[in-house]
Amino acid sequence: MSLPISAQQIEDAHKRIAPFIHRTPVLTSKSINQIVGCEVLFKCENFQKIGAFKARGGLNAILSLPEETRKKGVVTHSSGNHAQAVAMAAQTCKIPAYIVMPSTAPEVKKKAVAGYGAQITFCEPTQQAREENASRIQAETGATFISPYNDYRVIEGQATSAKELLEDHADLDAILTPVGGGGLLAGTALSANYFSENTVVYAGEPANADDAYRSLKAGEIVKMPQPKSIADGLLTGIGDKNWGIIHPLVKDIYTVTEEEIVEAMRLVWERMKIVIEPSGAVPVAALIKNKGLFAHKKVGVILSGGNVDLGKLPF
Amino acid sequence: MSLPISAQQIEDAHKRIAPFIHRTPVLTSKSINQIVGCEVLFKCENFQKIGAFKARGGLNAILSLPEETRKKGVVTHSSGNHAQAVAMAAQTCKIPAYIVMPSTAPEVKKKAVAGYGAQITFCEPTQQAREENASRIQAETGATFISPYNDYRVIEGQATSAKELLEDHADLDAILTPVGGGGLLAGTALSANYFSENTVVYAGEPANADDAYRSLKAGEIVKMPQPKSIADGLLTGIGDKNWGIIHPLVKDIYTVTEEEIVEAMRLVWERMKIVIEPSGAVPVAALIKNKGLFAHKKVGVILSGGNVDLGKLPF
Repeated sequence: MSLPISAQQIEDAHKRIAPFIHRTPVLTSKSINQIVGCEVLFKCENFQKIGAFKARGGLNAILSLPEETRKKGVVTHSSGNHAQAVAMAAQTCKIPAYIVMPSTAPEVKKKAVAGYGAQITFCEPTQQAREENASRIQAETGATFISPYNDYRVIEGQATSAKELLEDHADLDAILTPVGGGGLLAGTALSANYFSENTVVYAGEPANADDAYRSLKAGEIVKMPQPKSIADGLLTGIGDKNWGIIHPLVKDIYTVTEEEIVEAMRLVWERMKIVIEPSGAVPVAALIKNKGLFAHKKVGVILSGGNVDLGKLPF
Repeated sequence: MSLPISAQQIEDAHKRIAPFIHRTPVLTSKSINQIVGCEVLFKCENFQKIGAFKARGGLNAILSLPEETRKKGVVTHSSGNHAQAVAMAAQTCKIPAYIVMPSTAPEVKKKAVAGYGAQITFCEPTQQAREENASRIQAETGATFISPYNDYRVIEGQATSAKELLEDHADLDAILTPVGGGGLLAGTALSANYFSENTVVYAGEPANADDAYRSLKAGEIVKMPQPKSIADGLLTGIGDKNWGIIHPLVKDIYTVTEEEIVEAMRLVWERMKIVIEPSGAVPVAALIKNKGLFAHKKVGVILSGGNVDLGKLPF
């Protein structure tokens, strides 16, 4: 099988970003293990810089740019975590960051992006408005567009989370991630493929935003206009670069309801005493819903982030 | 100075309970360090068994009982965390646990106590009602009363948290804990005294339940009938055994308002992505309020627990 990213490229990305990211801890919970009937290793990207795995991809993309290009700055659009990642990475590299955010993004994410010194442009919460604004800024400033997910440098960066998890726990039977644009899922699938051949990769997806699930069933990308889910990090459609990796490497995608997402989120908060965002709870919900398939196995779950608006909790 | 608990007794307690507790992690947060202007080491007892440090004292008290006494069971009264600790320790030792809980205790704590197989008696939320019910059960069953705090075996157990913190970070200038009944504060003061002579111990206390603060200023125990605070773990009056340790060893107690407690709790949830209960936020609030006193120092903070009712958050 020909893949667009090599093991060496993931290893290089990891070396490139390692000085600027946290090697996040892997936590376990006896009571959650009892509930799901398998041994779960939670890779805590909620403890990552900016509170989400996206710090990895953003940093790798920006650090990979040639010096001359980089100094003109970077531009992106994101509902939040990728925005923070790009803003943080740009601040680290002392270059300008132009961020297009939907006006509906959680308050805590808007504040955090501003805190990294980025210039924010608010827009309507549609894919089209986001892309148009980003293109305009790109034309005006000469800044490089950093895709939230549909970019091989971003995928390489996201792949480093599963790489670390597999270094810490080599014998995982499976890894579950959430899927939105597909960067984390594609990266995870690559790392499992290269670094742990017996580890099978699955994803959880909100039933209300299930374009990746439908795509996998159809064998081609299925688009879905304006999905709505509490998992606000998973509303973007799957990118074609990600699809080219997910399609051959990911075993299955499980959909979960909004109620199942909130219940899984609550379970993790209550039992593990850690804050995860709804998007991060999606693979947990998928595992609970399909626990029969994973009985007695060793399962990694990537808790993708912990950026929630505490003033607007679903409990 | 003559103290009722020796260094050896704390070391013995630690060996006794070590197989049954977690050695909890010590976390740091760059952004909180920036806010308070010092280096803060957070000892995460919210990740302890039962979600709070009280697992330590409960286990040590029960494991210290002679076999014949122990098998008749144990009884206690508690608004929640000590109840869970005794229930869990009793389950570990396969003996009955009789728990008196105020009817106002958070739902999540009631459920957890029941989950450990304890027999629960609900009562009015007053010290008197709690003590009367516990005495009656003690007389009826022959069970041993395990005080939530006013017990040297409990204090020894609570002392092991600061002991671990000081083993991991030998050069702390100060440690802050919350204070309610005084078990954690007394234990922490003993461990600092024996294991790190340059570490000064302070406490934070809700202004709405400031009997320990008033006692320290008066030089004798001041009682306070029915205090009310969101920090529901800190409503009990300071015990005389604890007072005998706190009075000579604790440098100062800082009071904080309800708003300051909620703000500190929110800060820790947002920046560190961990769940702490209001009582655990009290020393954080005390540190923020008095940050000038700790500038550039290395300060340990014991995050005492993480058992919150997610359906009743103050955000």
